Amino acid sequence: MSTKTTRDHIVKCADQLFYQQGYEHTSFADIANIVQISRGNFYHHFKTKDEILEAVIDVRLAKTRKMLTEWENQSDQPAERIRSFIQLMITNKIAIKNYGCPVGTLCAELAKLNHASQAEANKLFTLFRIWLRKQFTLLGCKENAEALAMHLLARSQGVATLANAFHDEKFIKQEVTQMCDWLDSFTSHATENQTH
Amino acid sequence: MSTKTTRDHIVKCADQLFYQQGYEHTSFADIANIVQISRGNFYHHFKTKDEILEAVIDVRLAKTRKMLTEWENQSDQPAERIRSFIQLMITNKIAIKNYGCPVGTLCAELAKLNHASQAEANKLFTLFRIWLRKQFTLLGCKENAEALAMHLLARSQGVATLANAFHDEKFIKQEVTQMCDWLDSFTSHATENQTH
Repeated sequence: MSTKTTRDHIVKCADQLFYQQGYEHTSFADIANIVQISRGNFYHHFKTKDEILEAVIDVRLAKTRKMLTEWENQSDQPAERIRSFIQLMITNKIAIKNYGCPVGTLCAELAKLNHASQAEANKLFTLFRIWLRKQFTLLGCKENAEALAMHLLARSQGVATLANAFHDEKFIKQEVTQMCDWLDSFTSHATENQTH
Repeated sequence: MSTKTTRDHIVKCADQLFYQQGYEHTSFADIANIVQISRGNFYHHFKTKDEILEAVIDVRLAKTRKMLTEWENQSDQPAERIRSFIQLMITNKIAIKNYGCPVGTLCAELAKLNHASQAEANKLFTLFRIWLRKQFTLLGCKENAEALAMHLLARSQGVATLANAFHDEKFIKQEVTQMCDWLDSFTSHATENQTH
């Protein structure tokens, strides 16, 4: 493998382990074992678990930015774009049931550890927050776009936490339907406001 | 201190450490250091961190049962009782801002660790779930009492996760107002249904 590919491979394995078993519980050795390269080669890329975490967060940020741009490109309707955000819970329902939300659980863990990368990880939430706020603004709700964005983000987080605790995939579907209904009633209300 | 008092003291200190810095990150030694008793005395009560966790969960379950009974005794109106649940977020807002929800973060962590006490910890959620379902049933919504209970539980969890990530106390207040409005509109609807 090229140096870049090896580095990407380490980050990918670490990302998965941090998500599935937690950051604190995953040791530097756990990652090295799974990557299956020599210690020398491994240390060439990363000296500490903290460095790996930084790289994992960077990759997640880049992937999130890409996904948000794709959702924007897929539709010029802000309601449709918000629906893409809601539907992500369905796409990821098995992982959510097993490990919760990758953003929420990482931020919660780093907050408890009072970890130096806490602010970087929170940027993942901020990306969604700003993007949702933008869509709600485009939808015609300039004044409460921020509150609506945070409300929807919170609802998705709560669903992930309970689906994980109760190991309940159906609950995700049930709440996704409700979030879509909420969005529908909301957009029809916005349309009414625009009409009147 | 008596044997019982010493044990209670250990459990109390451990509960706080698990909540504030996470279960995995808290070592057996961390707890012993904070409790400030001899190792011999400490080991007399607990041999492993897992045993301490079991005791912590037992205490939390007992406290939660007591709190739910108190809310029931404080009012015979199910809506008022549900309001007590919602208002708990205001009472605990500083701790939530700093460390998230004690139930949600513990369950999420134990799920990742695939810990043997996972099911016991989830009983904390189940206590709230059954209690809320009972109140919604008393409110006249037999058919969707379960969905309403889970919905409210999820919303409170989501609020805790984001308030913690963004270190935002105001967001808790904002969402608590919305949850109360939701409950109000819901109860007025229930009253209408009863009237018609």
